[in-house]
Amino acid sequence: MNPRKRLRSLMQEPDRIIQTVGAHNALGAKLVEQHGFDAVWASGFEISTAHAKPDANILTMVEFLEAARQMTDATHLPIIADCDTGFGNVNNVIRMVRDYEKAGIAAVCIEDKVFPKMNSFIPGFQTLAPKDEFSAKIRAAKDTQRDPDFVVIARVESLIAGHGMEESLERAAAYEEAGADLILIHSKQKDPGEIFEFSRRWNSDTPLVIVPTTYPSITLTEMIEHNVKMVIYANQALRAAVKAMNQVLAQLKESGSLLAIQDQLSPMDQLFELQGLKDMIKQEEQYRRQEVR
Amino acid sequence: MNPRKRLRSLMQEPDRIIQTVGAHNALGAKLVEQHGFDAVWASGFEISTAHAKPDANILTMVEFLEAARQMTDATHLPIIADCDTGFGNVNNVIRMVRDYEKAGIAAVCIEDKVFPKMNSFIPGFQTLAPKDEFSAKIRAAKDTQRDPDFVVIARVESLIAGHGMEESLERAAAYEEAGADLILIHSKQKDPGEIFEFSRRWNSDTPLVIVPTTYPSITLTEMIEHNVKMVIYANQALRAAVKAMNQVLAQLKESGSLLAIQDQLSPMDQLFELQGLKDMIKQEEQYRRQEVR
Amino acid sequence: MNPRKRLRSLMQEPDRIIQTVGAHNALGAKLVEQHGFDAVWASGFEISTAHAKPDANILTMVEFLEAARQMTDATHLPIIADCDTGFGNVNNVIRMVRDYEKAGIAAVCIEDKVFPKMNSFIPGFQTLAPKDEFSAKIRAAKDTQRDPDFVVIARVESLIAGHGMEESLERAAAYEEAGADLILIHSKQKDPGEIFEFSRRWNSDTPLVIVPTTYPSITLTEMIEHNVKMVIYANQALRAAVKAMNQVLAQLKESGSLLAIQDQLSPMDQLFELQGLKDMIKQEEQYRRQEVR
Amino acid sequence: MNPRKRLRSLMQEPDRIIQTVGAHNALGAKLVEQHGFDAVWASGFEISTAHAKPDANILTMVEFLEAARQMTDATHLPIIADCDTGFGNVNNVIRMVRDYEKAGIAAVCIEDKVFPKMNSFIPGFQTLAPKDEFSAKIRAAKDTQRDPDFVVIARVESLIAGHGMEESLERAAAYEEAGADLILIHSKQKDPGEIFEFSRRWNSDTPLVIVPTTYPSITLTEMIEHNVKMVIYANQALRAAVKAMNQVLAQLKESGSLLAIQDQLSPMDQLFELQGLKDMIKQEEQYRRQEVR
Repeated sequence: MNPRKRLRSLMQEPDRIIQTVGAHNALGAKLVEQHGFDAVWASGFEISTAHAKPDANILTMVEFLEAARQMTDATHLPIIADCDTGFGNVNNVIRMVRDYEKAGIAAVCIEDKVFPKMNSFIPGFQTLAPKDEFSAKIRAAKDTQRDPDFVVIARVESLIAGHGMEESLERAAAYEEAGADLILIHSKQKDPGEIFEFSRRWNSDTPLVIVPTTYPSITLTEMIEHNVKMVIYANQALRAAVKAMNQVLAQLKESGSLLAIQDQLSPMDQLFELQGLKDMIKQEEQYRRQEVR
Repeated sequence: MNPRKRLRSLMQEPDRIIQTVGAHNALGAKLVEQHGFDAVWASGFEISTAHAKPDANILTMVEFLEAARQMTDATHLPIIADCDTGFGNVNNVIRMVRDYEKAGIAAVCIEDKVFPKMNSFIPGFQTLAPKDEFSAKIRAAKDTQRDPDFVVIARVESLIAGHGMEESLERAAAYEEAGADLILIHSKQKDPGEIFEFSRRWNSDTPLVIVPTTYPSITLTEMIEHNVKMVIYANQALRAAVKAMNQVLAQLKESGSLLAIQDQLSPMDQLFELQGLKDMIKQEEQYRRQEVR
Repeated sequence: MNPRKRLRSLMQEPDRIIQTVGAHNALGAKLVEQHGFDAVWASGFEISTAHAKPDANILTMVEFLEAARQMTDATHLPIIADCDTGFGNVNNVIRMVRDYEKAGIAAVCIEDKVFPKMNSFIPGFQTLAPKDEFSAKIRAAKDTQRDPDFVVIARVESLIAGHGMEESLERAAAYEEAGADLILIHSKQKDPGEIFEFSRRWNSDTPLVIVPTTYPSITLTEMIEHNVKMVIYANQALRAAVKAMNQVLAQLKESGSLLAIQDQLSPMDQLFELQGLKDMIKQEEQYRRQEVR
Repeated sequence: MNPRKRLRSLMQEPDRIIQTVGAHNALGAKLVEQHGFDAVWASGFEISTAHAKPDANILTMVEFLEAARQMTDATHLPIIADCDTGFGNVNNVIRMVRDYEKAGIAAVCIEDKVFPKMNSFIPGFQTLAPKDEFSAKIRAAKDTQRDPDFVVIARVESLIAGHGMEESLERAAAYEEAGADLILIHSKQKDPGEIFEFSRRWNSDTPLVIVPTTYPSITLTEMIEHNVKMVIYANQALRAAVKAMNQVLAQLKESGSLLAIQDQLSPMDQLFELQGLKDMIKQEEQYRRQEVR
């Protein structure tokens, strides 16, 4: 099954949470697959961090797309691409959908802020786009896609921006009407309270997506109870990697010896496996044998 | 001091080991700098792994260069680029040196195998280039560089390929004569014995570089005693990251909750710091204030 | 009809020459389509020239692929990609086919020389790969493709390399057996004599492709008579562009006035049209109207 | 002399018009140099056309930068990069200046419209940025550059946008105060009248730049008389190329024979020369001889 059909099929399963994990390169996407998750989030935050650049549209669409494209080579999971505000106006959204769809991405997610966006957890820089302007972007995205299975997620940032519950619900309804396949309702509260409230008041079949970075206590059961169809663990793998690299580099610097850190490393063989080296060697040997027939 | 002068200056300090750590992106390079190391190894193995591709010239020069270029944006440390066999013949080496030098790379390292190369730890696929052919590549690299501080490292693979100590010494001497600034003598033994022997028999002032992946017990003191000027810890940071990501993903899948893994993650603030977000916000506010003067 | 089906369908039409014209960017591909040709040749020679780099694998696969990918955005015609020798060994061919197929390319053409190749019209640098080695590449390419309509063209360089008619026929037969969909028989003679001879002696249904750069007198009728299915006008559009740019730049420099060259320029409106600007504006206005509903 | 010093030196010569010609790739830049012009304009319009994309920030900074970077490899002339509005806000301008300076570009030009911009010749879509906001971008650009010879050009679009002469002069004065090295005053009139008026009323030493696409009758003498330091022939080479390609493709399609168009093509040898092939072969032979010593 191709990744888009796979995502659509997961969306149809009742009481199924689509567990999506953030990545910033092909390796990360492959690890997410190996651990049995359902989809990969091509995270703007992670990709920006990997470039040591702020998560504020300092990188361009081309760089985010390239990272997502590389992921599609490494996994059969659907890639859900974090596309910030769509990288400009409707014209930019149209280019974006063409290019992401062509690259084999299963879904794009755009958010209702102005370009250039600022990471949602940085207060004081959260400017929402007019509702109609953003609805037009959703409509343009849906009109542009060719494969009916391509998914467009509308990310509502009005709780983040402090515009309150009423506006969030109005915006979500407008984006749904514009054609959004899923509504991502974002929150930076320390508990899932406002997410639960939003869910209770969301009178619609369009399913919800959440990103519980700041409210990690939420459980899968609670999600199912609140019409959440997809959870995005947006950046935890990278943050675990940074912590481990910091520890190992500190020990290596202090001890001056690789011996001190050996037990904290994945073996070389495991990395060769992740590279696909063994498959490559098998293929090469097969064609060599054919040569000497 | 620019990164190339910095590297040259480190090369002049007596009894100083240049501690170089592998990275595959800008983030990794920045972590290496923060921990006080001297230089960054833009590792072909790491970059290939990040792309989930074998370390066998499946990626092209352009992709390796792009990763190294991004590192130069994120750190003041010299970047030492792993350039495999030079990506083809002398003409390819000439393009390579032009592009890497222009991108702000401090040093390139090329090895005396044939294109496409295979990772040195995979037995049965290690074919050496003729000595004179590889010497011509070193000569071409040195003739091409414009900044006299640009460094060319010749990597001798004949111990790896099983050609023995005599040939290794002969090859190293030929590459030195061709202009190599440093000789990387590579070994896959479990102890540093053959490195020590090579060093004892190496009658030259051209300093040595080692990559002790398979012989981690070697100490900095032993390196100083054996004319080693640079040690490359080629891939340990990535291997620590993979181990940590595997652990965290496994726990997250099993528990279905972010709560279970919170203490294994770097805090968001640390990642914002690594992105340079705070500096960006400071700048943005400064220019905003100027606007309203 | 998608570009691959379109190419396959053209290949089935009896007495039909598939007229293919070289390009090096999206604009060129669009012009080829507008003039009613059948397919676009993503020419290694043209792309190299556009980069001001020799046609000798100085550019990497990634750069050739990127140019071809941009063409697929601009035209519905099938793109036939000039892939030199496959950019290395069978492993590189496998990556190549995966990436080119994914990018929407209809056909790839690889030639039986060693990497890095030299342009076929430069005598003294034409080294053929062993027949079995190249056959393995063809086999690998065919095994790798997923879409059965993807086309692999084997380019026989033995007339170019001076190995004679017998070897050319043997090689073509081997590549056909390995699965090649089309045989490109290349010649640098000033007349089509050796092409005609090859055709007479080619006892097979696998159709032929020619590149009559050096024998421009050949007619479509002669091609049909000699089992030629596809003709590639490989670089004429670029050479016309260079001639025109040289003329206009010379006159502009001498006269110091734009007035002197106005009648030699396409009007701005025509370029806006080629950009797709009018379609974009129409779309933008449509979404704006929807906003104010 | 490096390209930046060369540009600064040309700016100092009294009564000297810096004749700058547009290009979209390395080949175009090389032709501009061969014809004795002073500088290359890495034209946003040309680069967009080459991609068959509207000149409306559909392409990203990365794609414009890549085209400009390739030009620096092919010519010693200073490259003056058309950077539209700076690709976003001050933060994007800061990234832009870092990357363009690092790539060896001599000058960047930014215009006082909002992102995403629309080509200046398309009426009804010309929205100016607030003067203070754009001044902050100029200031940020000047603060960011490291090489004092790097040049920042402020492009005033208020005549284009219909805001009149007074506002144009006020804006130009503000941008000059913010640090702009040159003022590009843009006009779409059919004659140079408003340019002459602007010049007469421009009481400053900061020299002017013009782009006479719509008023081709202007002479070099008139430019000198009106304090114009640089003229940009922004897109004529591409428009000549398109006209020639259209003619040749039409004839080729109609005649079905290469013979009909041979006299309209640059010879292959000239293209090999533009590729730098002869230099490459000379080098390769030199290193081969050294091998067999």
